[in-house]
Amino acid sequence: MNSKILSEILKKVENGNLSTDEALKELKIAEMRGKDFFIDTLRNLRQGFEEIIYGKHKSKFQIEKIAEQYLNNNVNFLCTGLDDDKMNYLKGKFPDCEFLHHASMMRKVYTPKKIKGHVCIVTAGTSDLKVAYEAQETLNTLGAKSEIYADIGVAGMHRIFEFKDRIEKSDVLIAIAGMEGALPSVLGGMFAMPIIAVPTSVGYGTALNGFTPLFAMLTSCASGILVTNIDNGFGAAMAAFRILKGKYD
Amino acid sequence: MNSKILSEILKKVENGNLSTDEALKELKIAEMRGKDFFIDTLRNLRQGFEEIIYGKHKSKFQIEKIAEQYLNNNVNFLCTGLDDDKMNYLKGKFPDCEFLHHASMMRKVYTPKKIKGHVCIVTAGTSDLKVAYEAQETLNTLGAKSEIYADIGVAGMHRIFEFKDRIEKSDVLIAIAGMEGALPSVLGGMFAMPIIAVPTSVGYGTALNGFTPLFAMLTSCASGILVTNIDNGFGAAMAAFRILKGKYD
Amino acid sequence: MNSKILSEILKKVENGNLSTDEALKELKIAEMRGKDFFIDTLRNLRQGFEEIIYGKHKSKFQIEKIAEQYLNNNVNFLCTGLDDDKMNYLKGKFPDCEFLHHASMMRKVYTPKKIKGHVCIVTAGTSDLKVAYEAQETLNTLGAKSEIYADIGVAGMHRIFEFKDRIEKSDVLIAIAGMEGALPSVLGGMFAMPIIAVPTSVGYGTALNGFTPLFAMLTSCASGILVTNIDNGFGAAMAAFRILKGKYD
Amino acid sequence: MNSKILSEILKKVENGNLSTDEALKELKIAEMRGKDFFIDTLRNLRQGFEEIIYGKHKSKFQIEKIAEQYLNNNVNFLCTGLDDDKMNYLKGKFPDCEFLHHASMMRKVYTPKKIKGHVCIVTAGTSDLKVAYEAQETLNTLGAKSEIYADIGVAGMHRIFEFKDRIEKSDVLIAIAGMEGALPSVLGGMFAMPIIAVPTSVGYGTALNGFTPLFAMLTSCASGILVTNIDNGFGAAMAAFRILKGKYD
Amino acid sequence: MNSKILSEILKKVENGNLSTDEALKELKIAEMRGKDFFIDTLRNLRQGFEEIIYGKHKSKFQIEKIAEQYLNNNVNFLCTGLDDDKMNYLKGKFPDCEFLHHASMMRKVYTPKKIKGHVCIVTAGTSDLKVAYEAQETLNTLGAKSEIYADIGVAGMHRIFEFKDRIEKSDVLIAIAGMEGALPSVLGGMFAMPIIAVPTSVGYGTALNGFTPLFAMLTSCASGILVTNIDNGFGAAMAAFRILKGKYD
Amino acid sequence: MNSKILSEILKKVENGNLSTDEALKELKIAEMRGKDFFIDTLRNLRQGFEEIIYGKHKSKFQIEKIAEQYLNNNVNFLCTGLDDDKMNYLKGKFPDCEFLHHASMMRKVYTPKKIKGHVCIVTAGTSDLKVAYEAQETLNTLGAKSEIYADIGVAGMHRIFEFKDRIEKSDVLIAIAGMEGALPSVLGGMFAMPIIAVPTSVGYGTALNGFTPLFAMLTSCASGILVTNIDNGFGAAMAAFRILKGKYD
Amino acid sequence: MNSKILSEILKKVENGNLSTDEALKELKIAEMRGKDFFIDTLRNLRQGFEEIIYGKHKSKFQIEKIAEQYLNNNVNFLCTGLDDDKMNYLKGKFPDCEFLHHASMMRKVYTPKKIKGHVCIVTAGTSDLKVAYEAQETLNTLGAKSEIYADIGVAGMHRIFEFKDRIEKSDVLIAIAGMEGALPSVLGGMFAMPIIAVPTSVGYGTALNGFTPLFAMLTSCASGILVTNIDNGFGAAMAAFRILKGKYD
Amino acid sequence: MNSKILSEILKKVENGNLSTDEALKELKIAEMRGKDFFIDTLRNLRQGFEEIIYGKHKSKFQIEKIAEQYLNNNVNFLCTGLDDDKMNYLKGKFPDCEFLHHASMMRKVYTPKKIKGHVCIVTAGTSDLKVAYEAQETLNTLGAKSEIYADIGVAGMHRIFEFKDRIEKSDVLIAIAGMEGALPSVLGGMFAMPIIAVPTSVGYGTALNGFTPLFAMLTSCASGILVTNIDNGFGAAMAAFRILKGKYD
Repeated sequence: MNSKILSEILKKVENGNLSTDEALKELKIAEMRGKDFFIDTLRNLRQGFEEIIYGKHKSKFQIEKIAEQYLNNNVNFLCTGLDDDKMNYLKGKFPDCEFLHHASMMRKVYTPKKIKGHVCIVTAGTSDLKVAYEAQETLNTLGAKSEIYADIGVAGMHRIFEFKDRIEKSDVLIAIAGMEGALPSVLGGMFAMPIIAVPTSVGYGTALNGFTPLFAMLTSCASGILVTNIDNGFGAAMAAFRILKGKYD
Repeated sequence: MNSKILSEILKKVENGNLSTDEALKELKIAEMRGKDFFIDTLRNLRQGFEEIIYGKHKSKFQIEKIAEQYLNNNVNFLCTGLDDDKMNYLKGKFPDCEFLHHASMMRKVYTPKKIKGHVCIVTAGTSDLKVAYEAQETLNTLGAKSEIYADIGVAGMHRIFEFKDRIEKSDVLIAIAGMEGALPSVLGGMFAMPIIAVPTSVGYGTALNGFTPLFAMLTSCASGILVTNIDNGFGAAMAAFRILKGKYD
Repeated sequence: MNSKILSEILKKVENGNLSTDEALKELKIAEMRGKDFFIDTLRNLRQGFEEIIYGKHKSKFQIEKIAEQYLNNNVNFLCTGLDDDKMNYLKGKFPDCEFLHHASMMRKVYTPKKIKGHVCIVTAGTSDLKVAYEAQETLNTLGAKSEIYADIGVAGMHRIFEFKDRIEKSDVLIAIAGMEGALPSVLGGMFAMPIIAVPTSVGYGTALNGFTPLFAMLTSCASGILVTNIDNGFGAAMAAFRILKGKYD
Repeated sequence: MNSKILSEILKKVENGNLSTDEALKELKIAEMRGKDFFIDTLRNLRQGFEEIIYGKHKSKFQIEKIAEQYLNNNVNFLCTGLDDDKMNYLKGKFPDCEFLHHASMMRKVYTPKKIKGHVCIVTAGTSDLKVAYEAQETLNTLGAKSEIYADIGVAGMHRIFEFKDRIEKSDVLIAIAGMEGALPSVLGGMFAMPIIAVPTSVGYGTALNGFTPLFAMLTSCASGILVTNIDNGFGAAMAAFRILKGKYD
Repeated sequence: MNSKILSEILKKVENGNLSTDEALKELKIAEMRGKDFFIDTLRNLRQGFEEIIYGKHKSKFQIEKIAEQYLNNNVNFLCTGLDDDKMNYLKGKFPDCEFLHHASMMRKVYTPKKIKGHVCIVTAGTSDLKVAYEAQETLNTLGAKSEIYADIGVAGMHRIFEFKDRIEKSDVLIAIAGMEGALPSVLGGMFAMPIIAVPTSVGYGTALNGFTPLFAMLTSCASGILVTNIDNGFGAAMAAFRILKGKYD
Repeated sequence: MNSKILSEILKKVENGNLSTDEALKELKIAEMRGKDFFIDTLRNLRQGFEEIIYGKHKSKFQIEKIAEQYLNNNVNFLCTGLDDDKMNYLKGKFPDCEFLHHASMMRKVYTPKKIKGHVCIVTAGTSDLKVAYEAQETLNTLGAKSEIYADIGVAGMHRIFEFKDRIEKSDVLIAIAGMEGALPSVLGGMFAMPIIAVPTSVGYGTALNGFTPLFAMLTSCASGILVTNIDNGFGAAMAAFRILKGKYD
Repeated sequence: MNSKILSEILKKVENGNLSTDEALKELKIAEMRGKDFFIDTLRNLRQGFEEIIYGKHKSKFQIEKIAEQYLNNNVNFLCTGLDDDKMNYLKGKFPDCEFLHHASMMRKVYTPKKIKGHVCIVTAGTSDLKVAYEAQETLNTLGAKSEIYADIGVAGMHRIFEFKDRIEKSDVLIAIAGMEGALPSVLGGMFAMPIIAVPTSVGYGTALNGFTPLFAMLTSCASGILVTNIDNGFGAAMAAFRILKGKYD
Repeated sequence: MNSKILSEILKKVENGNLSTDEALKELKIAEMRGKDFFIDTLRNLRQGFEEIIYGKHKSKFQIEKIAEQYLNNNVNFLCTGLDDDKMNYLKGKFPDCEFLHHASMMRKVYTPKKIKGHVCIVTAGTSDLKVAYEAQETLNTLGAKSEIYADIGVAGMHRIFEFKDRIEKSDVLIAIAGMEGALPSVLGGMFAMPIIAVPTSVGYGTALNGFTPLFAMLTSCASGILVTNIDNGFGAAMAAFRILKGKYD
């Protein structure tokens, strides 16, 4: 819990403006809203962004109820991992929201955000684009600029050199690759900025649904590469946002 | 390869000061030294640090030869992953180097470095300290300040709250944990700065030599957590350095 | 086999009231009923509950036949793990039974049960609710009271503190979590009662369909945490019932 | 943190006996002692036992320092997972402590404990005894009575029947088995009390260093079986203690 | 290749009744028939049964063509692993064949077989019956008698004792179990005949789609248990047939 | 990048015919065409074949756009891994292309190729044919002759001997097998030419979706066997082409 | 428990020659001897051989105590899995026993056994011999004849043909192989008798310490192959003994 | 078996110069020598090289006996995988042989071999050199020329470009890499000759003892890459020899 709020409440107690019992209740109220599904409204204060909902394992009815909590309170809402069936159901319920099919997301922005800095998103193949879009739209929602360079795999190294100058100017580099996941190793040897490697489930057989690029990225011969879960474009964007926020906020 | 150097060489060619063949040779010479074992001396220019040697799979004789190349050229030298046997052998050969037993490192700094910013290193248990020391000494070598808070596991949450203020002031947070690896999830919900999670091989049975904390950190319910290989304190330091460099350089 | 019944039968033999052959037959009859599918009617005596049917791998026709055996004998019947197709088929056959969709169960209670004590069920996320409902409805069937507190993940620790007092009053705590499964570690450090950790298949990639929270819970840094199979709300309820029975029966 | 202590401190603040800053410090002091290695002295209040040290991944020097903290404060000390080398080193340093070789433990009890109830520990083979001893000595330390019945594997079912009456009288049953880990399934069908299954690393090849009995126990056809990490006799004892404490305390 | 046939052909060559080239051709003709898909007609001579077709990975068109080869030559035909779609297609093409839905088989017997001996098939649960039927129908085709005792799991040991006498009279015992796969261990301690253990994919989570019972059976504490692939009722029957053939043929 | 082109461009710079900036642009232009999706037109020069598209993870819209780039430039186009849905969609868009259903490929050849040499493709079972067809059609596209011998498994060794002479005459042997993948071991002991082993996902249970034959082929007791990814008929053909090219080009 | 003995005891009870309590005690006495370590003396009656001790996970002191129980009662004793250290210790304690170094066994036979029939043991390589010796010496102890043919791998098929006639005459064939484990597949296609496949840990990398040959043997394309745990020569012998006993006893 | 020899023997039988029985014996004699350990002397005819012995799992006494068979018959002998202990023992027994410590080999060449062509061996790191030496010395023994370029990892791409011309001239490229194993992907995009990728066990954690580079190489985005077992320098050399032999013999 935010220590400033804690101090204020403690001070009220100290000043006799608040009994112990009231203080305890106030602490709870300060951080919680809603009934069945919480909105962590203090998270925005704490971390600069609202809680974002992961929709894959939730039923469409659960997502509907959660969305209502947010929208009724005019809180920015972003839900990721939505398949077509959920997307269509929610479209019918919340026609005013954005539905970003290329990124499997539903979004409603009440308070647009803005942060300085620039993220570069690079993918090894065309098939990795879906993950790149998830990263980009998450960054959009957080108010950060980004650019995607796709299909820049290591079997055609000249393609990387083509975009070298532009990549060099970015604050954070997100490198997305499936199959053998070699791209971050090559980039890590060429660039000095923070690199976030995202393995994808593109490939078959020994690609192990993304575990081979995951393990490869973690054991990269280039040093200082950081890694997210498989296909986790959202997480990469959040990590990039942490870095931008540390630098420019 | 650094594009400034490339441009200069191309300009010399353009001005007739360099033939094509000479240019090709010069490009090679610019980046390579030594015979059997290369020193990538341009890496310092490219990434702000020299290549660091990983000693675990190299024989003591190979490390000796590589070290000679660096020391003969007065290039900063850092070798990680040294066991006692290699440590003792190398001590006999290079008595002027530092031998950091708590971090399994050999080091020789000719040109001390300095970078602004501050890294906070937190460990879940006492057994994770070895990895923390590796991170800290690597940061020392790179010229970055850091502090270790050890034994702050999630089964005793109050310990985390104790250090909350100090952690909040750091630029980067390195969270080191073995067993179930829950520490970064809790920290990720409390802090907004970039968090680098390092799983360790501490634990037994279902700790899977560090794969359980690795997988747990990658699938953390806190968003924007980035992860390194198991026991990779060195890699975490390098990643932290990339972030500091982007922010302060 | 229950030793009291064995003693009685042996005594009848001793008293000449029963021949050896008759004794052997009686022993069998005492424990077995039905033809193709057994009802283990002595289990109620032995363990305080009837055998509960796991429906996932059985065809709807097999479940129908088994259910008939129970219902024809007025024996309490609970079948878990039913998908919609089986549910609908069985509804047509046994309109008098309860069909609990949120818990994927079919139930018929002839002899309601009652046991003292109170179980607290906590979930890390909304997506874990299905498993929590399975646990709760199983406890209902066994006559035990329980309460669910959902969406209390470790990335928002304050939510746990909110419910601390109520959790502290329960006899058994069932902690349900997917992804990194850190919740039981945190709870284990805060509470002294028996804790049953249930990993769920919520998550993707390195969540390993629930194996990561399973392994994490088994290697928890909090001591005395006990674990069930993945998504096994039913098993957690049965284990809680064993503890309540030992305490209050 | 214990809410009673929190209330008291808050009351002092309310009464003007304590400033906000002092309150914050006092909260920390209340729970922490020592310098490099914490003693969680409040854990005894919270959970009825002191923190127990796991020695396997700690160096002998680290264990020595931690032990000093406990012994200097006359706090009960138990360290598990000690190999011969550490055992001998620590014997030299702390000649007044108990060294339990059959259970790989070092112990010093200042305040003997006592709890009602009785635990039955059953092993499938002779090779599983080491784990059984770890459980038994942990229970001893916690003040709980227990009895071991060894070598009662399922390939000789009559051996189980031999001890049936005695097992039936226990409050908690700890079942320890390696190889195929079938013992808890058979016991689960025979007994109604809480059963804690401990897989061991006894076996070779497909025993998978204990993962096969672990998985077998988790997917047991007997319901309500709870499971610990591989070879975790200590954890089983702690869980049994939680159950005894809930029942008799 | 059968050495008697080889000797005869070599003798013909020796006697000048066959040239070298003719001999080579004859050898091939002796063992091969058909065009695109071979019928290994000598296998009947060699092993006492025709080649049996595994239908799972073959398209319905491939199975149709293979079946034609057999049926056109009046050779006994058995195809296993057929799903409903293939079953229906083949029914339309070969209305004179048997279609055994409970065992997922298509069959045409021109030359009924008969072998002495008796096989006992035991399953741990009702859900394992499908595999038991595959074993039984394969044995029927090979002319061997068998009996199924289902739902005899180790959590209700008395059920095994019920059938003890009948099991004792069989030549071979096939024990089928999913989940923890403990049944063969218990049977192995009770019976002296050859035991073939068949793991099934019944179960979820740590049952690992049958790998847990597979590994458990292989590392059984009962000695002399032999194991087949997961769900391989067909293979168990073939192995039983090898044993019967060795004993009675 | 091709060094001849580099030399020419450098020479132009040396002669003053090209400025540095122009040179850099020309280098990019020399290797890149198209907008969103690159055609690596220099690959034909470099490796003797155009880039081949893997269709499995690409949407039909992505494949359509990529195909347009190739077809608009009259570049040979081959796309593998197409399911029926994609096949039908693309048929509607590109009616002039070949659609090879048995090999899941779409193809358009503008410039037919021809290379000397002969590849022999052997499969262990009928179910492996799909992979064999993928290899054969890829070789056709590259201009290489090949022949398939199917259903030659090691349980019927005489079938291998039947085709021994023809196999012996091939330049490269591609051996395709699922299940236990023993075929390449037997062939490796009989033949001296390069052998490319392709594991297939044919089999169930311990066949591990092709990982068992993969591992078996990699650890073959016959020496000099080389292996591809599971079901990778395309990769085997490409490797065979590299060998033929080295021998005959 | 043997039903004849049960009947006799029940009859004594019926005749008034035995009270219920006495009967219960007698039942226990009938099957148990010794104090700390049981000798299952009825196993000889039940299964035709005494319990055999697996020494790997037992301490030398445990083995010593168990051996004493057997030797003091003149019961045949066989202990497998002994390393050199245990072997030497036991040699000093029991100089009258046999110590079979090639098979890692200690043995004392008081009552030699004899059973008809003949087992053939075949190994793929020289390195598999250790497992073959374990099988052979176990069979010796059980009174069964056997012969070893070593180094008959599938990469040199002619070697198998050399021994074809002798193998054909055996009652049971034990096929031992590491690496890719292809030997049983080839033998399964050639021979009709029962085949017991034993995978060994010979090989490296993808041989997976014996799991690759294990999986390969279980998914063999030859039908009716039965498999034991890795390196389990003892288990193969016990299974062969079950088959011989069924045939000749 | 070589068909020419078979034809000759069959012709002798046809001409009456050989009886059937004599023919069968001769066939065996033609291929077998020695007593306990076979020398496959026909392999040289069949495949152009003698059988090579893998020493890792053989005892020093077994290797000694096998070596004697070869040396007594003046047959070329190569034994790989020898550790220091075996090396020293064998040195004492066979002082006339070569002992290649850098490649863990023992060798005796009676008939030196010579084959045209040139192999290029590239390693990603210094730690991979041991595997490279094994490949090189095997090629030496087979009479093929080769050159090693070490420490050419993808994080320093310029090093690859340095050696581009020399690599381009080789007939076969062996690419050796541990960790993420990205090297063959980059080389595969640059070069057209056959590429043999050898994963090594260099790395830790997610390098998985070489399985990560193995899987990465198998799922490489560069097409036509062929792969060997982990650390299998010997196998790579044998495969290269098959290609050279096909091209130049």
